[in-house]
Amino acid sequence: MLYFENDYCEGAHPAILQKLMDTNMEKLPGYGFDPYSDAAKEKIRKACNCPEAEIYFLAGGTQANAVVISTVLNRFEGVIAALTGHINFHEAGAIEYTGHKVFGLPHQDGKIRSEDLQMYLQDFYADKNHEHMAFPGMVYISHPTEYGTLYTKQELTDISALCARYKLPLFLDGARLGYGLVSEGTDVTLADIAHYTDVFYIGGTKVGALCGEAVVFPEKAPAHFMTMIKQQGALPAKGRLMGIQFDTLFTDNLYLTISRNAITTANLLKKALQEKGYRLFLDSPTNQIFVVLENRQMERLGRSVKFGFWEKYNEAHTVVRFATSWATTEEELRQLMELL
Amino acid sequence: MLYFENDYCEGAHPAILQKLMDTNMEKLPGYGFDPYSDAAKEKIRKACNCPEAEIYFLAGGTQANAVVISTVLNRFEGVIAALTGHINFHEAGAIEYTGHKVFGLPHQDGKIRSEDLQMYLQDFYADKNHEHMAFPGMVYISHPTEYGTLYTKQELTDISALCARYKLPLFLDGARLGYGLVSEGTDVTLADIAHYTDVFYIGGTKVGALCGEAVVFPEKAPAHFMTMIKQQGALPAKGRLMGIQFDTLFTDNLYLTISRNAITTANLLKKALQEKGYRLFLDSPTNQIFVVLENRQMERLGRSVKFGFWEKYNEAHTVVRFATSWATTEEELRQLMELL
Amino acid sequence: MLYFENDYCEGAHPAILQKLMDTNMEKLPGYGFDPYSDAAKEKIRKACNCPEAEIYFLAGGTQANAVVISTVLNRFEGVIAALTGHINFHEAGAIEYTGHKVFGLPHQDGKIRSEDLQMYLQDFYADKNHEHMAFPGMVYISHPTEYGTLYTKQELTDISALCARYKLPLFLDGARLGYGLVSEGTDVTLADIAHYTDVFYIGGTKVGALCGEAVVFPEKAPAHFMTMIKQQGALPAKGRLMGIQFDTLFTDNLYLTISRNAITTANLLKKALQEKGYRLFLDSPTNQIFVVLENRQMERLGRSVKFGFWEKYNEAHTVVRFATSWATTEEELRQLMELL
Amino acid sequence: MLYFENDYCEGAHPAILQKLMDTNMEKLPGYGFDPYSDAAKEKIRKACNCPEAEIYFLAGGTQANAVVISTVLNRFEGVIAALTGHINFHEAGAIEYTGHKVFGLPHQDGKIRSEDLQMYLQDFYADKNHEHMAFPGMVYISHPTEYGTLYTKQELTDISALCARYKLPLFLDGARLGYGLVSEGTDVTLADIAHYTDVFYIGGTKVGALCGEAVVFPEKAPAHFMTMIKQQGALPAKGRLMGIQFDTLFTDNLYLTISRNAITTANLLKKALQEKGYRLFLDSPTNQIFVVLENRQMERLGRSVKFGFWEKYNEAHTVVRFATSWATTEEELRQLMELL
Repeated sequence: MLYFENDYCEGAHPAILQKLMDTNMEKLPGYGFDPYSDAAKEKIRKACNCPEAEIYFLAGGTQANAVVISTVLNRFEGVIAALTGHINFHEAGAIEYTGHKVFGLPHQDGKIRSEDLQMYLQDFYADKNHEHMAFPGMVYISHPTEYGTLYTKQELTDISALCARYKLPLFLDGARLGYGLVSEGTDVTLADIAHYTDVFYIGGTKVGALCGEAVVFPEKAPAHFMTMIKQQGALPAKGRLMGIQFDTLFTDNLYLTISRNAITTANLLKKALQEKGYRLFLDSPTNQIFVVLENRQMERLGRSVKFGFWEKYNEAHTVVRFATSWATTEEELRQLMELL
Repeated sequence: MLYFENDYCEGAHPAILQKLMDTNMEKLPGYGFDPYSDAAKEKIRKACNCPEAEIYFLAGGTQANAVVISTVLNRFEGVIAALTGHINFHEAGAIEYTGHKVFGLPHQDGKIRSEDLQMYLQDFYADKNHEHMAFPGMVYISHPTEYGTLYTKQELTDISALCARYKLPLFLDGARLGYGLVSEGTDVTLADIAHYTDVFYIGGTKVGALCGEAVVFPEKAPAHFMTMIKQQGALPAKGRLMGIQFDTLFTDNLYLTISRNAITTANLLKKALQEKGYRLFLDSPTNQIFVVLENRQMERLGRSVKFGFWEKYNEAHTVVRFATSWATTEEELRQLMELL
Repeated sequence: MLYFENDYCEGAHPAILQKLMDTNMEKLPGYGFDPYSDAAKEKIRKACNCPEAEIYFLAGGTQANAVVISTVLNRFEGVIAALTGHINFHEAGAIEYTGHKVFGLPHQDGKIRSEDLQMYLQDFYADKNHEHMAFPGMVYISHPTEYGTLYTKQELTDISALCARYKLPLFLDGARLGYGLVSEGTDVTLADIAHYTDVFYIGGTKVGALCGEAVVFPEKAPAHFMTMIKQQGALPAKGRLMGIQFDTLFTDNLYLTISRNAITTANLLKKALQEKGYRLFLDSPTNQIFVVLENRQMERLGRSVKFGFWEKYNEAHTVVRFATSWATTEEELRQLMELL
Repeated sequence: MLYFENDYCEGAHPAILQKLMDTNMEKLPGYGFDPYSDAAKEKIRKACNCPEAEIYFLAGGTQANAVVISTVLNRFEGVIAALTGHINFHEAGAIEYTGHKVFGLPHQDGKIRSEDLQMYLQDFYADKNHEHMAFPGMVYISHPTEYGTLYTKQELTDISALCARYKLPLFLDGARLGYGLVSEGTDVTLADIAHYTDVFYIGGTKVGALCGEAVVFPEKAPAHFMTMIKQQGALPAKGRLMGIQFDTLFTDNLYLTISRNAITTANLLKKALQEKGYRLFLDSPTNQIFVVLENRQMERLGRSVKFGFWEKYNEAHTVVRFATSWATTEEELRQLMELL
């Protein structure tokens, strides 16, 4: 069985496991106060060109979203996201569980447009009854999005400027950030993201770590952020587990280097699919490829390959997702192409 | 200044105040255990043809929605409502504050359609990842809706059957229920509502009471419902205040009698508007009339009449709402018509 | 049956009902923007000697506590209260429902002592692990307390100074404030309370209103307080109901005048009890009298008088509560004394 | 610097890291549906003598407590725990954050006594106003406790029987369970725990894992437990990380074998402390040793050894904690003894 279902089906990049081995019996303080966490943070600050950034390591994406959003929002506020945003659908109501509404904006291939955001904000404040409504308190975007698409630097600049005008923190979910940063044709760098957002996270789980997301506040984290992490059950006793992994990922550019493999293999796959006449649901520049399959074809292929069910296209067709990753090999690609 | 802004701008129907006076110095138990609350409940059970119904009195609509929804839902569930549903917009995120998501369905003049509901539910359960999503746990409808429209008995039957099939409690927000029950042409009775829903409330605040909504569980309330009311700060010490009001409203059919005045005056107003060439935004059969006004016309009229701002129609026009009530007089109507 | 079970067993003071009658058909804006609410607020500001105070009317005590505490606290904070504090026991976990811990301090006849508070705060900050604990974020006291006792001005000053030193808002629950203010021997005035606390409420429900508590922020309410009131389902559409009541209560000193009746009758009752050899559980200077009854005596008396069960004293005795109110008459007293 | 501050200062037991290496490039399903998670669960079921148990892996102790308690409790319920219980103090209000109260019972060396529990429950239900209070909905005990003490089988039986009588689920926090199970003199086995509780967890983080706690429901987990784990941000994408670790820990009895080292070294240390005249704060039979140090002595010792600050004993003395673990070596012990 070939495996293209997602980008988190292996363990960790071998360099990470090696570092865990090498440091295993060192006695270190808990809760992120170990020297590896410090080193990782320092390296991330450099990579973000953001010497004052406050950085915290959390275990996973839903956790990172729930902790960041619920600590940054005021009680009377909700978060604006694309209707397709991960927080709006696939996190089991984790944001609402913390007491906050998610406002769904229309999307274009998973991205929100600054025009739509502006209209939403204008209409909200123009409504004379808006004191009876939850206030917009934050804007959430994902990059890459749930459809693998990327914001351009111009789009990011526009959204960021709009957020600043309305005093709304901008939060970027970078669960797959590595794959976005090395996509061909993107003009958005890690430093740009640190510049244009108020908080974002650098995904580890989907980019070679066993677990872990690095939450970056380029300027300042909310007061007593650590206590609130603990309050949400998200403070790891052995903070070293995250620290060592991110220290490794941000040494010698490993994070970007291994991300490139996902892009290279995705591009090869995309080309092969197109050559064989498959219909792409949209043109994703990163490691997620969405294909419209005829249902029986989907069933047949599913006997030899694992891929992701995405959404119904129509009665006879389904959108499925093939994901490559830091670990995808040319041999796997070759086998997949034979089956297509 | 004429006042057509809403249906809660007066105090209470005089019979209610009289009864409060008459019973004022009686010493009664608190928390709803007084004989007036008992009598009111018994009269409501009769009116609903529902001898086993459990009934609780709460102070207002947002409170009733938040208490009912958050006590009926399981923790992993959200509530389905029309995108225009009151709980989705105008309650300051009160549902999400209790930890639950509101799923917005498309609407037709404020109503959800059973076809849309069915598609939503089918798609949800067809999605192989639905264990990663908040579950639909209840359906919320309002009757009359936020646009003054009404479900037909057939529509209610269809939605109810669908809910039963998916084991979803059906909750009807009756903040303006009186106005719906006496609308010309409706085929839905109070007994129908008790039959087709799992919980609903009979609005008092907007239909002649100082405050108060009667929450009716035709079969059974959640266990320890009173404790949860208290937990949400919604248990009135002097339960008599609600009991006496609903006892009065459900004596000699007062609730329906006073509701009729709102419909009669609304119909007169609608006719006058149409004769003068005004454009109705939609055809509401109850006491809320939505009119599309040219912006300067709106401004001019606003100097002599209070009405509700509803939504922008386009750059030059706005949708406004005129509401009649149990208290609207023919003299007020006459004065308004002169201004139109 | 005589009724001394609590101080909220009648309707409202007749002057309040009269004013509700007189203003009933006036058409007024909702949500507290009516002129009666404005007038009431202005009169309360004067009575508090606090011209800048922000004032909001809520319907009941648990609601006022839950709204104030959950809007003033930061997310990582809890509230300090006496173990016997109303919020700690008799509000069904309403504070915890909003996500915040109640820290129980030892009490002396229902009051917290500044020494205990100081020790608690010192120990908290001395604990090197305190970042792993919920922070103290507010101090809650009740005046009169749940045992009818009162803080002296010196005690209030000391607690207030300690709160200021630790930057903790001080919140005073005045559900029975009237009875405290007119107690013989108290040296605490309404202006003192406004001076020494950061937020407090003036109880209406137990002091002659149908419902209603006036929440006073002597300096400033939290931003968007009204939206958060709505979010907790506590914003009354007909704000006039509260406004008119408090306008009446703060006209010509009515609030204090009617409170005095409760104290006069309580003092007479206390004297009678002592003369007849009853044992007082503690010496309460307000309208709640706690008596230790032998269980069979309690049962016998219970056939003719309603009083409150308070707590088990020992196997053979029980503490019960007799409450007088603004409405207690000499005739009722006389009948009770005959039974004792 | 010697390190006796806690039992989670190393990485993982080498066998765990080896297994992570060996399986690293296998492509496995996420979210706990991998074969290692299955194998680990099966081994735990056997060890618990509980073939029907439902088992879930979470990342840490506070998370496990918050997820279990908030999913098992009804909305109107709180959890009973010793005043010293971890959930009551050192988890930043994580339980209250989910909306539930913690009821603090008196404790004896960290344990609750069934007599105190019984009195609490009797008093609660005897109180005629208990519908106005949060209901007891669960009993939480830790084993070993926060003071390293252990329940006897008789104590566990009594508490369990009492819980059954009141229909209260019994939850055992086993963050250090391994150390309790192999303590000399304990008569409580893993199978006993599965028999006498309704849910418990087997601690990994403090007993040789990088992270991870195995939550065991001997009979049945709450419906849609996985969705609620996700909702609290606690569902790991790479469930294999936990599965592989627990599979290793429960292969060939590794969990108990490595736990024994902590007990052996703790006993040696205890003996040495007593011989040198140190005063033990209490007699803990597991791996945490609490010593009363004179403050200057504490300071001097602190220059060469890391230990835990526990609580102030009096002005001149402090209680500190020395913890041994699966990794403590005789050489470390020897060095520590020289310093004492």
